Amino acid sequence: MTDIPHLTEHPNPAGIRRVAVLTSGGDAPGMNAAIRAVVRTATYQGIEVVGVRRGFSGLHRGDLRLIGPRDVANTIQRGGTILLTARSHTWRTPEGRARGAQYLRDWGVDGLIVIGGDGSFHGAHALQEEHGIPVIGIPGTIDNDLYGTDHTIGYFTAVETALDAVDKLRDTGASHERIFVIEVMGRHAGHIALEVAVAGGAEEVFIPEDPKPVDGVVQIVQDSVAKGKASSIIIVAEGYPGGAQGVAQAIEAGTGLETRVSILGHIQRGGSPVSSDRVLASRLGEAAVYALMDGRSDVMVGRHNGEISYTPLPETWEKRKDVSRDLYSCAKTLSV
Amino acid sequence: MTDIPHLTEHPNPAGIRRVAVLTSGGDAPGMNAAIRAVVRTATYQGIEVVGVRRGFSGLHRGDLRLIGPRDVANTIQRGGTILLTARSHTWRTPEGRARGAQYLRDWGVDGLIVIGGDGSFHGAHALQEEHGIPVIGIPGTIDNDLYGTDHTIGYFTAVETALDAVDKLRDTGASHERIFVIEVMGRHAGHIALEVAVAGGAEEVFIPEDPKPVDGVVQIVQDSVAKGKASSIIIVAEGYPGGAQGVAQAIEAGTGLETRVSILGHIQRGGSPVSSDRVLASRLGEAAVYALMDGRSDVMVGRHNGEISYTPLPETWEKRKDVSRDLYSCAKTLSV
Amino acid sequence: MTDIPHLTEHPNPAGIRRVAVLTSGGDAPGMNAAIRAVVRTATYQGIEVVGVRRGFSGLHRGDLRLIGPRDVANTIQRGGTILLTARSHTWRTPEGRARGAQYLRDWGVDGLIVIGGDGSFHGAHALQEEHGIPVIGIPGTIDNDLYGTDHTIGYFTAVETALDAVDKLRDTGASHERIFVIEVMGRHAGHIALEVAVAGGAEEVFIPEDPKPVDGVVQIVQDSVAKGKASSIIIVAEGYPGGAQGVAQAIEAGTGLETRVSILGHIQRGGSPVSSDRVLASRLGEAAVYALMDGRSDVMVGRHNGEISYTPLPETWEKRKDVSRDLYSCAKTLSV
Amino acid sequence: MTDIPHLTEHPNPAGIRRVAVLTSGGDAPGMNAAIRAVVRTATYQGIEVVGVRRGFSGLHRGDLRLIGPRDVANTIQRGGTILLTARSHTWRTPEGRARGAQYLRDWGVDGLIVIGGDGSFHGAHALQEEHGIPVIGIPGTIDNDLYGTDHTIGYFTAVETALDAVDKLRDTGASHERIFVIEVMGRHAGHIALEVAVAGGAEEVFIPEDPKPVDGVVQIVQDSVAKGKASSIIIVAEGYPGGAQGVAQAIEAGTGLETRVSILGHIQRGGSPVSSDRVLASRLGEAAVYALMDGRSDVMVGRHNGEISYTPLPETWEKRKDVSRDLYSCAKTLSV
Repeated sequence: MTDIPHLTEHPNPAGIRRVAVLTSGGDAPGMNAAIRAVVRTATYQGIEVVGVRRGFSGLHRGDLRLIGPRDVANTIQRGGTILLTARSHTWRTPEGRARGAQYLRDWGVDGLIVIGGDGSFHGAHALQEEHGIPVIGIPGTIDNDLYGTDHTIGYFTAVETALDAVDKLRDTGASHERIFVIEVMGRHAGHIALEVAVAGGAEEVFIPEDPKPVDGVVQIVQDSVAKGKASSIIIVAEGYPGGAQGVAQAIEAGTGLETRVSILGHIQRGGSPVSSDRVLASRLGEAAVYALMDGRSDVMVGRHNGEISYTPLPETWEKRKDVSRDLYSCAKTLSV
Repeated sequence: MTDIPHLTEHPNPAGIRRVAVLTSGGDAPGMNAAIRAVVRTATYQGIEVVGVRRGFSGLHRGDLRLIGPRDVANTIQRGGTILLTARSHTWRTPEGRARGAQYLRDWGVDGLIVIGGDGSFHGAHALQEEHGIPVIGIPGTIDNDLYGTDHTIGYFTAVETALDAVDKLRDTGASHERIFVIEVMGRHAGHIALEVAVAGGAEEVFIPEDPKPVDGVVQIVQDSVAKGKASSIIIVAEGYPGGAQGVAQAIEAGTGLETRVSILGHIQRGGSPVSSDRVLASRLGEAAVYALMDGRSDVMVGRHNGEISYTPLPETWEKRKDVSRDLYSCAKTLSV
Repeated sequence: MTDIPHLTEHPNPAGIRRVAVLTSGGDAPGMNAAIRAVVRTATYQGIEVVGVRRGFSGLHRGDLRLIGPRDVANTIQRGGTILLTARSHTWRTPEGRARGAQYLRDWGVDGLIVIGGDGSFHGAHALQEEHGIPVIGIPGTIDNDLYGTDHTIGYFTAVETALDAVDKLRDTGASHERIFVIEVMGRHAGHIALEVAVAGGAEEVFIPEDPKPVDGVVQIVQDSVAKGKASSIIIVAEGYPGGAQGVAQAIEAGTGLETRVSILGHIQRGGSPVSSDRVLASRLGEAAVYALMDGRSDVMVGRHNGEISYTPLPETWEKRKDVSRDLYSCAKTLSV
Repeated sequence: MTDIPHLTEHPNPAGIRRVAVLTSGGDAPGMNAAIRAVVRTATYQGIEVVGVRRGFSGLHRGDLRLIGPRDVANTIQRGGTILLTARSHTWRTPEGRARGAQYLRDWGVDGLIVIGGDGSFHGAHALQEEHGIPVIGIPGTIDNDLYGTDHTIGYFTAVETALDAVDKLRDTGASHERIFVIEVMGRHAGHIALEVAVAGGAEEVFIPEDPKPVDGVVQIVQDSVAKGKASSIIIVAEGYPGGAQGVAQAIEAGTGLETRVSILGHIQRGGSPVSSDRVLASRLGEAAVYALMDGRSDVMVGRHNGEISYTPLPETWEKRKDVSRDLYSCAKTLSV
């Protein structure tokens, strides 16, 4: 029998008594699970939580309120974010940030937890630089393009949503002998596209990191037909030049085969988070509170090789997380 | 206690001993359930079944084979069609149909069951007119635009797929205050769009049957914002002039609000059929075999008010099934 | 082009100015869609809505509040009921009902809409009998066992949930050659079980309406094995004597084959409602408000053959809705 | 721009020209993706593949056949295993294994890949010990209880299936104020139960690794009610003494609250694999072929910290993979 640990209080050398939390940038499935984990962990440790609505936009407007464990009941399975999110031009000004800092001081907040992507972490970093308020970032974005964590909250769900679409096209492709081009999210990164390509058994994938000429796909499609494949499924990340429409036109022009396009768009941002996103969000929300209690600041909590990791916020946008070469290679091999 | 009927053999005055079955036109979820029902009902009644692959294209090429109840095992839940489907130019020629008729005679087929839409029923009707071979149509198309049946096989699943997308946009829309325009299938008919609009709680729906000017939606979106709605979801059938892109551009131009487009495309043709499509397909597959045994021909079997109905094939394309006015009115009322 | 009707106000000869709405009994997916439809239709017609929390239990305790169209925003896709539900012993007493009636009068309510099953309709009927308050019932129960409507709100979703489970068992059954017995809801009625059996391609179904001896299934399973079926799936309604456990034991005893049981339980009550339940709920919520405006009372609004129907509340529990014989026969034929 | 690697042939010092593959033990979602990866990787490297049907049972009976890349087309998304699986008593005898080894030699097989759990790896290990045939194991079991890999193929899907059930109960629990006890798979291990408890926001979880007395849950449920929680969800692994039924009875006896049980059973073994299982299976199938080419044998390929790992087969059953203490602690904290 395993010796299961008994729960103990986490030490609180930083003397944190009240934290604030907000979601910022594009929403991602699992943000609510992260908010819930922040609120419940804090409560468990005797710390109060202030929720900020509409991200930094709400912060410089003073849209703050106390939230407790019952306020986050029944939210772990919900897409979107109960704290809402918005983009803020004002936050990019020193005046805007000064107003936000003042609100946090007025509310007696000892540290701010920001759930979002690298743009949001810029805003958090500036707040800490200029006003000395401890900030912790939690990676919440479907694109998985943040340096310092193996995965970002929302990524697994976005992949699953896109994969479900691919599976449905496969049904009809297998019956009808057609080419399908499906555009998935990823303006600057091909993580989603690549994972969906492997999991969906796609014939080809186009990602921004490797802007190979679209002509090659014509040969691939013709080879597929020659090998007896009933249909071809091509994944295109939105950041690949020309997008799905461009790729589809090249295929139709080159092969004469009927080619259909699906553009998933923001559908991939919604939906109930899958288990992996909820567990990641739960672990990172817990870790963010502990990080403040430990006296950390200006870092993003992440998960690397199963362990909690801490990355200075500036590194999250200065360094680049590459797509997996092994996965890219695997996608090729398995489409044989 | 209910007196449950004992199974009896269905009378067979037409002396049917062997039937053929094919799927034609665009595939639809539930086609496999219909094939399975034809095969199993026939088997139960002591009748053999010949499966034709790739629709009429396979028929004039002689791509026929005997299929039994085990061949359709584990298919009721599969999207697509195990008999494959294709469009055939040759079938539109008398020579092509003559070749197909000869194959059916060579195989000793007493009647042909065609699962598809009105284009497919044209082909079946011509076969019966020119060669006297009994034909029965089963309505299989996601668009639900066939006169003579309350619903077509595949419609319920296509609606559910589109609805799932709307629900996901709703999550992100509720968090972010944006406008979403989602294009669903329906080149000539707004059935899917309308049902999705009511079930998805959309703010507005554009269908081919009512080409109202797109300008009105600008007012609707502005009213929504004024009423405090966090976001607006607009459904557009692909057959509405300009499609989703046109509607989105008009909204952005008129309101200045960020507007996002999703185009589902052929995703709506795939996926495991929902229960309603499987049950409808099972009932109609059974009814099609019984119809041949009863000596019927040149009719489509459908379901109207819970009962099996028979509609002369030409009526299925000559008459028009309107969208439900009550539903259209309901969509409006409930978006208040 | 279809001539689409313009919206007009519904006449209001009964002079309804304020209605109350509650959900009662076991919850069912789509109840929120019905509440939303009541609120929005009323608002559209210039009528106010009072929401009662926790059913009749909340009514006799005075748990009432005004609700508007924004309160039901983003609820159409949610399972459960935002008004909560509960069973009430007090409501079965004249004193309890008198208190509830007084609260309704205090709030100036002109009519009460009750969403629930036949037990709930008993409570509504008594209120109208004793206190002259107009009441309208909306059929909300997953069991589909209410006389006076082709389907009840929640039924389609419950079927889909159970069917999803059957599909998953089919995967593993096809790989492993085992017998699966799956128990679905239905204490007194086999509607769910029968629909799931046809849609899931089950080998046998046991329902309360036909308590045939369990011994017969042993022969069926042995025949299945002889016919080359990889596995057998048996559906049992919870109301069949002995339930799934009893059936499984009989099969193991008679065949010696490994038999596995799944008991879905209340899972079938939850989940996001499928489109059919949402549209039905939307139509019936709308119809309930119109019914009060038309001066109707003591009736359940339902849908029969696509049209709104009105059934005196007592008939909903005095008369019985039988399971479909055609479907029962179809289940048998297609398991050949 | 990232420098993406060009595909090259994998070196083949072991001179592998033909491999065999089988699935064994309980089936798991993703087994087909693993088979497909084995077949396609081998094909890509110029190696032939022999598929063995029904696991070791088929091996000692000689149920072998060549399979190519088109045979695994359209299978990546399918639950179950196209090679079927079975338990074999004969394989536990030296004579049975000798017959299997002879078949492999007759077919010119240079190595055997076994997809399954520790029982299956026993069988593979014995084959290598007694007959010198290189064997590689791929971890395919939903229970995630194999030492030597962070996750097993099928685990993520099983968790998602159970989580979906928890979400549905949450809907109805939130509306009705009841206690739900849900039994998930895991005869000897609590991995699934624990992950589902965190992801589902359960109030308590009972796992075989920590057989704490069931009485404690009574206090937890009463505390939950006191804290204002509308309902409680309790997860029980099937291996916890007494199972879900035992826990439910203790709660009802101790609190007097209505308690409902759901037993998911083999549903968790089926369904289309989620992306994480497909990608893991694809990577491990590829790695298994490379391992044979590299001259490895008697090891299981796994994934640890994102990298392919190799574990001697005996270690997979001699060593134990504990449940995550951090996760167990997290489950507690977040149920506050």
